[in-house]
Amino acid sequence: MRGAAFQGAFDVRLRTDLPEPEITGPRDAVVRVTRTAICGTDLHAYRGELPGFGAGTVLGHEFVGTVVAAGAEVPYQLGQRVVASDVVACGRCPACARGWHYQCPEVTLFGYSTVVGKSLDGGQAEYVRVPYADVVLWACPDGVTDEQALFSSDVLSTGYAAACHANITAGETVAVVGGGTVGLLAGMCARLVGAAAVVVADPVPARRAAAAACGLVPASPHELAEIVTDVSAGRGAGSVIEAVGSDATLRLAMATAAARGTVVAVGAHHSNAAPLDAAAAFARELTLRFVVGDPIVVRDDVLALIRAGRIDPTVVISHRLPLTEVARAYELFERREATKVVLIPDDVD
Amino acid sequence: MRGAAFQGAFDVRLRTDLPEPEITGPRDAVVRVTRTAICGTDLHAYRGELPGFGAGTVLGHEFVGTVVAAGAEVPYQLGQRVVASDVVACGRCPACARGWHYQCPEVTLFGYSTVVGKSLDGGQAEYVRVPYADVVLWACPDGVTDEQALFSSDVLSTGYAAACHANITAGETVAVVGGGTVGLLAGMCARLVGAAAVVVADPVPARRAAAAACGLVPASPHELAEIVTDVSAGRGAGSVIEAVGSDATLRLAMATAAARGTVVAVGAHHSNAAPLDAAAAFARELTLRFVVGDPIVVRDDVLALIRAGRIDPTVVISHRLPLTEVARAYELFERREATKVVLIPDDVD
Amino acid sequence: MRGAAFQGAFDVRLRTDLPEPEITGPRDAVVRVTRTAICGTDLHAYRGELPGFGAGTVLGHEFVGTVVAAGAEVPYQLGQRVVASDVVACGRCPACARGWHYQCPEVTLFGYSTVVGKSLDGGQAEYVRVPYADVVLWACPDGVTDEQALFSSDVLSTGYAAACHANITAGETVAVVGGGTVGLLAGMCARLVGAAAVVVADPVPARRAAAAACGLVPASPHELAEIVTDVSAGRGAGSVIEAVGSDATLRLAMATAAARGTVVAVGAHHSNAAPLDAAAAFARELTLRFVVGDPIVVRDDVLALIRAGRIDPTVVISHRLPLTEVARAYELFERREATKVVLIPDDVD
Amino acid sequence: MRGAAFQGAFDVRLRTDLPEPEITGPRDAVVRVTRTAICGTDLHAYRGELPGFGAGTVLGHEFVGTVVAAGAEVPYQLGQRVVASDVVACGRCPACARGWHYQCPEVTLFGYSTVVGKSLDGGQAEYVRVPYADVVLWACPDGVTDEQALFSSDVLSTGYAAACHANITAGETVAVVGGGTVGLLAGMCARLVGAAAVVVADPVPARRAAAAACGLVPASPHELAEIVTDVSAGRGAGSVIEAVGSDATLRLAMATAAARGTVVAVGAHHSNAAPLDAAAAFARELTLRFVVGDPIVVRDDVLALIRAGRIDPTVVISHRLPLTEVARAYELFERREATKVVLIPDDVD
Repeated sequence: MRGAAFQGAFDVRLRTDLPEPEITGPRDAVVRVTRTAICGTDLHAYRGELPGFGAGTVLGHEFVGTVVAAGAEVPYQLGQRVVASDVVACGRCPACARGWHYQCPEVTLFGYSTVVGKSLDGGQAEYVRVPYADVVLWACPDGVTDEQALFSSDVLSTGYAAACHANITAGETVAVVGGGTVGLLAGMCARLVGAAAVVVADPVPARRAAAAACGLVPASPHELAEIVTDVSAGRGAGSVIEAVGSDATLRLAMATAAARGTVVAVGAHHSNAAPLDAAAAFARELTLRFVVGDPIVVRDDVLALIRAGRIDPTVVISHRLPLTEVARAYELFERREATKVVLIPDDVD
Repeated sequence: MRGAAFQGAFDVRLRTDLPEPEITGPRDAVVRVTRTAICGTDLHAYRGELPGFGAGTVLGHEFVGTVVAAGAEVPYQLGQRVVASDVVACGRCPACARGWHYQCPEVTLFGYSTVVGKSLDGGQAEYVRVPYADVVLWACPDGVTDEQALFSSDVLSTGYAAACHANITAGETVAVVGGGTVGLLAGMCARLVGAAAVVVADPVPARRAAAAACGLVPASPHELAEIVTDVSAGRGAGSVIEAVGSDATLRLAMATAAARGTVVAVGAHHSNAAPLDAAAAFARELTLRFVVGDPIVVRDDVLALIRAGRIDPTVVISHRLPLTEVARAYELFERREATKVVLIPDDVD
Repeated sequence: MRGAAFQGAFDVRLRTDLPEPEITGPRDAVVRVTRTAICGTDLHAYRGELPGFGAGTVLGHEFVGTVVAAGAEVPYQLGQRVVASDVVACGRCPACARGWHYQCPEVTLFGYSTVVGKSLDGGQAEYVRVPYADVVLWACPDGVTDEQALFSSDVLSTGYAAACHANITAGETVAVVGGGTVGLLAGMCARLVGAAAVVVADPVPARRAAAAACGLVPASPHELAEIVTDVSAGRGAGSVIEAVGSDATLRLAMATAAARGTVVAVGAHHSNAAPLDAAAAFARELTLRFVVGDPIVVRDDVLALIRAGRIDPTVVISHRLPLTEVARAYELFERREATKVVLIPDDVD
Repeated sequence: MRGAAFQGAFDVRLRTDLPEPEITGPRDAVVRVTRTAICGTDLHAYRGELPGFGAGTVLGHEFVGTVVAAGAEVPYQLGQRVVASDVVACGRCPACARGWHYQCPEVTLFGYSTVVGKSLDGGQAEYVRVPYADVVLWACPDGVTDEQALFSSDVLSTGYAAACHANITAGETVAVVGGGTVGLLAGMCARLVGAAAVVVADPVPARRAAAAACGLVPASPHELAEIVTDVSAGRGAGSVIEAVGSDATLRLAMATAAARGTVVAVGAHHSNAAPLDAAAAFARELTLRFVVGDPIVVRDDVLALIRAGRIDPTVVISHRLPLTEVARAYELFERREATKVVLIPDDVD
């Protein structure tokens, strides 16, 4: 089958000789992929920034498709439209029992080599094997397209989690640091849960334009404080979402939070010594919460928002390409010419 | 001065011989009223349902105006536009220290005789004395009209509190039992904090039409269960707001809540033996929370939502009348020909 | 094998001809029972109060033992000491994904016939089949005896859940209505989470004595208000746990709660029209929460408290009997001569 | 009158020529001090580490005494035993209305010069003026000694707040970094709210011995991880309290927290660039919360715990000295020969 394999830094290739996956136990399923996407975190792999990321790994942790094989314990029909969580968890351990799937001892991510748990081939392919499919998959409801449902697998669920963990009081102003896909979706979710206004800071003009198109207030990073003050009539940002994952963005997020405020860091952080202004955080009694997002828990709510027309995540898509153009897709994304790329395995002609 | 006095059951009269109030201590203020309103709870007094409600009481716990006198401890300027909380509290006791103003030992309500605390004349008048004015008043911000700000004194703050205490998870369906002013405002707030859809049940067609005009899904009480099932794709209502205060509406609200759901009872309940389906509540692990609302705590957030254009509470106004027509206003309201009446003291010609 | 079968109202019999259970799929296990117990809710079955409760059902939803057979998906060794949750849930549905196991569509209780979900034979037997054993069982840790661990299967987990959901602020006084096993354990847990004092109301002198022996303040129901006032220096009970399940106890619990307080109803309620004082609940802004308890979620914490010596649930045991005396055990319990009976299948000589 | 005045770095002097304070408005009171204490944060002033700290400031933000003068709005009698909050707040602003007294625009601390708000002389003196005394003071209840009540003014209220904001689930292991007064009291409070065990890390053997004497498990900082693993049977510390305020202690606290855990930083932090391991915090989905403590909110609960005998904060006192020996007291404290010093103004002979 066809699939996008990581071969080395800046080298993602379409392979056509990959073996079709098969089920290996009663909780496995195999999904034929109809839509998949490239996520910002895939770029860390693409750039070779993740030590030990194995050559030959099929990439991709966002996909939707139909069931083509299922073990005896998997409660889905062949042919059923399903979405997979990017986070794979067992469903039976104490962590899963609490709904803490990312803390499952058997946690892994599709297409992420051994960075989180054991290696598991990803969804930028025609077919993908899904372990613990009884827990990891869910049905794609009527009234939601494959392309919309795709967003429930990771980025919209992540943006939603960020907004839900940010202690947003309806009426307060929320700031988002970073206008990428997660930042925009988190910002839209923050509005959905009652922010009077959401200000999105990003240095890239095109991203600020995208934020404005999503109903959010754009700001360059150095304007952020002033615009927040203005929009909030001096009250400041009671909640801030940091959606990049760098030291500088975390610092900006903390500096932007009003007294008693909450900062949610939803960007994937790699720093071991991010310089935190503890004095200011103490004086203002701030809370900083690192949030990974858990599609297994929030899937129904996220899909309900889409179905009800409260949010349409596809507005953030910049490119729709056949899977065969995956190498070019990574290049576009790396050059920031694309914000969100959807890949279509069927579209091969 | 002019004011609306309760004289007995179904007898509210405009009096023109009332003494102008004066400050009596350093924390008092006197406000010249520019807008005041009749609230559904005023009807209980009007109908003579509240034993011991004193004849001669000036009615009204919703008003906005300007400061005309202020004691030394009141941090507002003469002429400043201000709104008063319907709930009066001292600001210095343990309950107030926690932000539980309705539980203050000195709590009283404007224009409610001795039903809650000591008697205090209300705001359906040209002037009103405000005790603990340093705690009870707040400035009306630029960009918010007197008429809009009026709603922060009670009904919007109450609807907001109902929505905020209902444990609404973004994406779930919310049901509201009762399409009066508080029900509609609570329903709008429930949407604001993330309900995928809000279904409002009311037996009166005009109220259902009003609900639809506010972006809510109307239902008759006997249709409620079916419409909730339909709108939620079978998940049910994770949160329910009961905005009437009767045994029947509380029962309907409890019956409508999905498993692990929360019911907020924000209607003023007078029953001492409301028949609760405890068996069903236990099987579904429900939470029932009685919420009074506390404008002193939520005022800034409510006003921020108005200022940002996220909500315009004035859509629920059915009548604007001069204060001189207060007797007719109560009659209209009692006959359910009015849903929300705003009274204008200045409009005397 | 031997087991206690329900044959009809007031007729529980030791049967010696029951077939030994076998595993039926990859997620099943069979446990050889070392300790089992009779729970207050078993009396509802015993008395024939549960319509449709099937004759021949093996009773008992509290047991501990060792694994003697396990399907391929069950991560326990043969011979391993394990405890089972009284609540059986699938671990893979949206409810389970949130940690709401009692709301699982496949929920059932051991030994409870078809009252909750499908019939499943219980643990008052030598062997018991455990479905979804990967989710429903947990290992019994070193340092915790079988008899102690037995309490994590239901009553201690339930009492713990009651205390944890009661919004107890450290320093407040907590009232418990009902001094049976769950009431005592809930009261001990309420102390553990910070109650300055816990007052337990029960009409039975022996139960009040048991409460006192557990470090709780005993009260007859009619003394409760006065003793709470006294113990709390007038502040009242910020949290109340209702551990009986009757209309009268729910009413007493609500009447006992201080302003802004929470009442947790953890007794199994069967009333469809419990008379609630809604007027008082509204005036005091109370919260009423029905809590079932979920051993699958809280097992680790409950066992940690036992292991650390913070709580010893075995203090509530009144009788230890061989399984062969199960008929007499039910009679003792029904006559209130026993409070908690532990049955020992091995003790057959 | 006599009082302890800061004259410069390492120079605290008993002055005998200080003017007796007088009330300046209707919300002022003057308290004759019966017990006062030196707090760890006073050492920052003592060492001259706080730029702009004014020479001549009377030190001390912990004191208890009797009312000797009170303005018309202060609801206490002359002669009444009272405690003061270290945090002074107005009680009438939006922050105070929410119970966020440390964020009041008029916030100040007794005896802290201009470091937080306006300068206000402190309580290490015979008399002290208390502004906003209607909010800042509370009555010392019967059954609680002055010396015990003294702890409600700051350190016990702070330790209590730390424990209450640490999301402690009953049964989990809690770690405390720092075995000074606040660390010990926070650790005792963590036990009180349900920690199965509390491990306290401190490099000073005497402090570890004090921890053990308080029922806590002592550890040197480098042993902390191992002891937590051991005590928790491998689950780790679900909550960690950082009670020092340095970069190193914050880092240790974050490293000690288990997945999904909460770290409360209750030490007074002065660093503007504390190096945070954001990668680990993200992978483990941690929450970091900076907590100042708010005696005005928690006073009643803290005093109730003392009155009920659940906690006796006086166990941390190492020295009781007459106020006249205040210079020596600071020296002892600075040399770590004292952990908690109580000063007695009356003890002058």
